[in-house]
Amino acid sequence: MKLCIIGFGAVGKGVSRVISMKKEILKEKYGLDISVVAVTDRSGAAINPDGLDTDLLIETKEKTGKISEYPEYGVTDVTGIHVLNQVDYDCLIEVTPTNIDDGEPAKSHILTAMNDGKDVVTSNKGPLSLCFSELIEAANSNNSIFKYEASVGGAMPIINFAHETLAGNEISSVQGILNGTCNYILSRMANEGSPYGQTLNEAQELGIAETDPYQDVEGIDAACKIVILANSVLNMNVSLKDVQIEGISRITPESISLAKKEGFLIKLIGEASHNNLEVSPRLVREGSPFAVDGTLNVATLRTDLADDVTVAGKGAGSIETASAILSDIISIWKSSL
Amino acid sequence: MKLCIIGFGAVGKGVSRVISMKKEILKEKYGLDISVVAVTDRSGAAINPDGLDTDLLIETKEKTGKISEYPEYGVTDVTGIHVLNQVDYDCLIEVTPTNIDDGEPAKSHILTAMNDGKDVVTSNKGPLSLCFSELIEAANSNNSIFKYEASVGGAMPIINFAHETLAGNEISSVQGILNGTCNYILSRMANEGSPYGQTLNEAQELGIAETDPYQDVEGIDAACKIVILANSVLNMNVSLKDVQIEGISRITPESISLAKKEGFLIKLIGEASHNNLEVSPRLVREGSPFAVDGTLNVATLRTDLADDVTVAGKGAGSIETASAILSDIISIWKSSL
Repeated sequence: MKLCIIGFGAVGKGVSRVISMKKEILKEKYGLDISVVAVTDRSGAAINPDGLDTDLLIETKEKTGKISEYPEYGVTDVTGIHVLNQVDYDCLIEVTPTNIDDGEPAKSHILTAMNDGKDVVTSNKGPLSLCFSELIEAANSNNSIFKYEASVGGAMPIINFAHETLAGNEISSVQGILNGTCNYILSRMANEGSPYGQTLNEAQELGIAETDPYQDVEGIDAACKIVILANSVLNMNVSLKDVQIEGISRITPESISLAKKEGFLIKLIGEASHNNLEVSPRLVREGSPFAVDGTLNVATLRTDLADDVTVAGKGAGSIETASAILSDIISIWKSSL
Repeated sequence: MKLCIIGFGAVGKGVSRVISMKKEILKEKYGLDISVVAVTDRSGAAINPDGLDTDLLIETKEKTGKISEYPEYGVTDVTGIHVLNQVDYDCLIEVTPTNIDDGEPAKSHILTAMNDGKDVVTSNKGPLSLCFSELIEAANSNNSIFKYEASVGGAMPIINFAHETLAGNEISSVQGILNGTCNYILSRMANEGSPYGQTLNEAQELGIAETDPYQDVEGIDAACKIVILANSVLNMNVSLKDVQIEGISRITPESISLAKKEGFLIKLIGEASHNNLEVSPRLVREGSPFAVDGTLNVATLRTDLADDVTVAGKGAGSIETASAILSDIISIWKSSL
């Protein structure tokens, strides 16, 4: 299976590292022989039809910041689209940064690959939350397999869980804590009684919140995930503009301690159902599966047979997100057998 | 797909009800046409090669207590083994009561079906926790598919989750709250400060604890599940006698309130790893995924890539357990395509 990795930030490097770690086991266990034939970043690309060295890819990027510096096979002046048009590959791994304005360049990468009949795995929330049905149609009409587990909740495996593990169940809603940064800030505010601004600053110093925290703390990131879950798990046809969004920046330590006295916590909850698409701070009972601390993501699926089923896992992290991408790659490989 | 349901208590009836509910959808969505050709209980059997009426099966059992009273097709004086030897079927649904002394009669039912090359789905913890490797060998040597999701945690889908959704990950341990009765008793003791004996009595009055609560409160039921998880998820080869077991009957309200002051809860935790097979009361931090109330089951898988991943769901219930059996049936059907 020849992979083309477009984008080589934390997630792209994670994928490369995971392939290094698992190459032999995947061959043994699944008969799956992965080779990375091209990788791109802003500087250009590294291309070798016989396969690139996944360790050397990471080393090159970490030392020079540029994948185009890859020994012998590095090239400048090429874009992702060029590479997809010129290289012979089986599956695109689209892991460029999320852009929620127009979903580019990820959208074009994905559509180019699909129109060529290639399979696609992505962690990119942009195109999925802006033009989901367009992507699904392109995949279907080209017989391309399209997988995107890593786009929601990193290592919390919710999409494949809903589709495969809960087969036979009808799922009527998804609710969850879908942003680790917000959950970290709210947990610390609850445990320490500290105000929002100060807690955000501390989270930024620890690298848990980004320098520009807007999309996280205002609920945009969670809303993107709600859109993806609504479309993929509930078979809806919605986009980001359909979600009612309220973030956590106006929550006070006083409201948190008031809730606590009554046995409740305040959490940023995303909800997708056929009646409601919403991200907002809500009261959660202590002792419920949503009463988790820290950067964890949690989601509950309401089903007709199994009742409520909950999954929780790390919402972010390079290797954790790459794990979700690897499970998608394995699933594509299995369905090709 | 012709099913033979051996055992027609809460779980067997649940399976029958779920098939009634989902018959048309399964045809549409998966092209799966299920027919129940035989059902047995202690009274005898109902057998019809053209398919029994799943609603009438439930009605007959609820009205008369005997499946042998099924109109026209009811028979007495037959055992499960007779039926399996005489009826033409594709898949055995073994849902007789769990027997942890010798696993019978479930063990013989399962081996009979496998030796005949039939697929098997079971919720029965007995044979799985006493002679797992014998069953797996029989399945492998007869090319029979063997699925048992419902045997651990009812509607909490942990086994297929580990095998399919987390593909690519190596799992090093499983920890969990695997007995809903114990978790209910401990939660009420924590919330109300009530002593163990009184809380158990109340749970019995509510039908949450059984009249003979021994296997639940002394940790045997959880230990059976730990054995099944160790064998199936961690590829170990162990049985019930290998588990160190301590139940909850000696826990006092005082120890619970002492723990609470320090921010901890007391939960009955099962653990399976290559170094440890244990069921015992442990301290669990508030805000952790194990800090759940009520009859919920929760399990955390420690993985090499995805870090800790947790699933939670109803540990018992007729329809919930049947949901797990249905997902196994669908998975067998898919792999036959």
